[in-house]
Amino acid sequence: MQKLVHTPEGVRDIYGEEYAKKLVVEEKIHGVFHSYGYRDIQTPTFEFFDVFSREIGTKPSRELYKFFDKEGNTLVLRPDFTPSIARCASKYFMDESAPLRFCYMGNAYSNTSQLQGKLKEVTQMGSELIGEPSVYADAEMAAMIMETLLEAGLLEFQVSIGQVQYFKGICEEAGLSEEMELELREYISSKNYFGAEDFLLRSNVPRQHCNMLLKSAELLGGVEILKEAKESVTNPVSIAAVERLEQIYQLLCVYGMEKYVSFDLGMLSKYNYYTGVILKAYTYGVGDAVVTGGRYDRLLGYFGKERPAIGFMIGIDSLMEALSRQKISVSTGKEVAAISYRQDTFPQAVAEAKKRRKNGEAVELVPEVNGK
Amino acid sequence: MQKLVHTPEGVRDIYGEEYAKKLVVEEKIHGVFHSYGYRDIQTPTFEFFDVFSREIGTKPSRELYKFFDKEGNTLVLRPDFTPSIARCASKYFMDESAPLRFCYMGNAYSNTSQLQGKLKEVTQMGSELIGEPSVYADAEMAAMIMETLLEAGLLEFQVSIGQVQYFKGICEEAGLSEEMELELREYISSKNYFGAEDFLLRSNVPRQHCNMLLKSAELLGGVEILKEAKESVTNPVSIAAVERLEQIYQLLCVYGMEKYVSFDLGMLSKYNYYTGVILKAYTYGVGDAVVTGGRYDRLLGYFGKERPAIGFMIGIDSLMEALSRQKISVSTGKEVAAISYRQDTFPQAVAEAKKRRKNGEAVELVPEVNGK
Repeated sequence: MQKLVHTPEGVRDIYGEEYAKKLVVEEKIHGVFHSYGYRDIQTPTFEFFDVFSREIGTKPSRELYKFFDKEGNTLVLRPDFTPSIARCASKYFMDESAPLRFCYMGNAYSNTSQLQGKLKEVTQMGSELIGEPSVYADAEMAAMIMETLLEAGLLEFQVSIGQVQYFKGICEEAGLSEEMELELREYISSKNYFGAEDFLLRSNVPRQHCNMLLKSAELLGGVEILKEAKESVTNPVSIAAVERLEQIYQLLCVYGMEKYVSFDLGMLSKYNYYTGVILKAYTYGVGDAVVTGGRYDRLLGYFGKERPAIGFMIGIDSLMEALSRQKISVSTGKEVAAISYRQDTFPQAVAEAKKRRKNGEAVELVPEVNGK
Repeated sequence: MQKLVHTPEGVRDIYGEEYAKKLVVEEKIHGVFHSYGYRDIQTPTFEFFDVFSREIGTKPSRELYKFFDKEGNTLVLRPDFTPSIARCASKYFMDESAPLRFCYMGNAYSNTSQLQGKLKEVTQMGSELIGEPSVYADAEMAAMIMETLLEAGLLEFQVSIGQVQYFKGICEEAGLSEEMELELREYISSKNYFGAEDFLLRSNVPRQHCNMLLKSAELLGGVEILKEAKESVTNPVSIAAVERLEQIYQLLCVYGMEKYVSFDLGMLSKYNYYTGVILKAYTYGVGDAVVTGGRYDRLLGYFGKERPAIGFMIGIDSLMEALSRQKISVSTGKEVAAISYRQDTFPQAVAEAKKRRKNGEAVELVPEVNGK
């Protein structure tokens, strides 16, 4: 009986004001996506395992919920939406040359251990801009993140922008193999700088490049750090990476959004997923980023044809938690009026309810108690 | 590679106009639910197996998607929402004496064999009215079904109303055990009348009751069949069942909805789930009911405290298919305007886009090609 009324660890029921607010915020965000010309797409809750395999996805296999269909295929509850959207773009829009703008909303799942104390089912809303390699696409994504967070009601937040190519440029120059680069990426993205230093020394990476790589992890702050970042390197890939960030900053000034920007050249993704700009939005009240995203120019290639793409995902549950902790009110405006009836007054009650419902009011019919 | 771009059998991607229309219809239905004072509730996509076990749920165990969490619990992708809503009502609103009005929207899953050719993931929207045993609750549900279908754009449909108690009354009078009643229910609900007759003869049910039971399966039509139904029986349970239907009809006349009603006393649920009125809506273009529902006064008892309840569920995918086959247009009004830019005109393009987005327009920024 205990088990019967409870939900499994890490998933939950949402109702009442809490859910009403969540729906209002989702609708606002959806409105921003639409206003930028993004079109809704819905993919299945579960897909073949291959769509979310290690080389494609952002979650290790042990964190996937796996099960089988009657045909014996291994299915996976989606851990995120981007691989599915990339699959759709390849399947249905292979011959489309114009950029594709997609948005989605739904729940995603991670089979983490309960010790991690994280939600295992979360609501995600996101946008993907496919087929547009330019810095304008990068800026559009960053501006949309800012606009959705403002629209949701957040007043204080930062969108932190990184650029994987800065790090990659130094690694290439230093002669690191792809495996070594991945290992180093793990250290730096987990902010394990001692581990990174130790690894670099063990790997006989030239002192000069060790310094550059370790320094890159500390390059974070306002637009002023970009100058320092550029001066710290000499290879053309890293320099181009910084110049890309400078251009994004200029475009975000055009959008009037520069005050929400910061840069972080040590921000790398744990997985070999993002290929250029990385975007993360932070606000106070929640530890992790409320938005994550970036450029993933190689992902579509797995599904057929390589095309550049950039996207982001808003963690709606984290966002709602931030709004709640920051005591930002979300107006649901969902008062329900009651019209009472007796057997003999039921026709009038229905007529009045009908009229008021047509006017957009929420009305419930309630039987009179004891002739009250 | 083939597998990579494909979705598993029975689930699908929805995008473009098709999905835009589905979202519009969902929003309209949601609006009707709200206007009647129903409040949104969201339960997890998966729950403990026990919540959907044979005695509670509407699906046999073999049609459930089952998997395990890291703690070794058996989890199930929800086959429908009603047991979860009943669980929530018991968990969070145990002491509430006023009726509860809940509505939900989400996807539900059935692990059917691909030979059945059915969708394995479907979108369901529904309402549940808990704690109100009266005929007014029955009529409110039926009226809401009709109003949502009208709001969705359907012009021709029928809400077929049955009453399990009519059948149960005869079974009791005839002295059928619960097991026998369930077996007979299976025959009649699968419209296997030869099987039903054979079963009744084998079971030595008195000829008079055999006739009543077989006749009940044929009692379907307009309000006029209720008179015949009443005259065919003598036991008080069956008579009260018909009187309940008469009252519902009178109340639906008050709602001005009587033209959408028909009655079907042979309509029983395959599973021992509904305890009174059964509601099914049919329209042409799809074979199965687009809405199913009914009174389930015993379900909440499984989760703690018995309370009367009635609810219904709209199969959104079936509804969309019906609208499409009936060539009923759904206006999405989602034109996206394009504003082109060059590097030097980008600021003006952003300014114009901003203005038009604020006015509710959907606008995408597009780079000029070859100075065009």
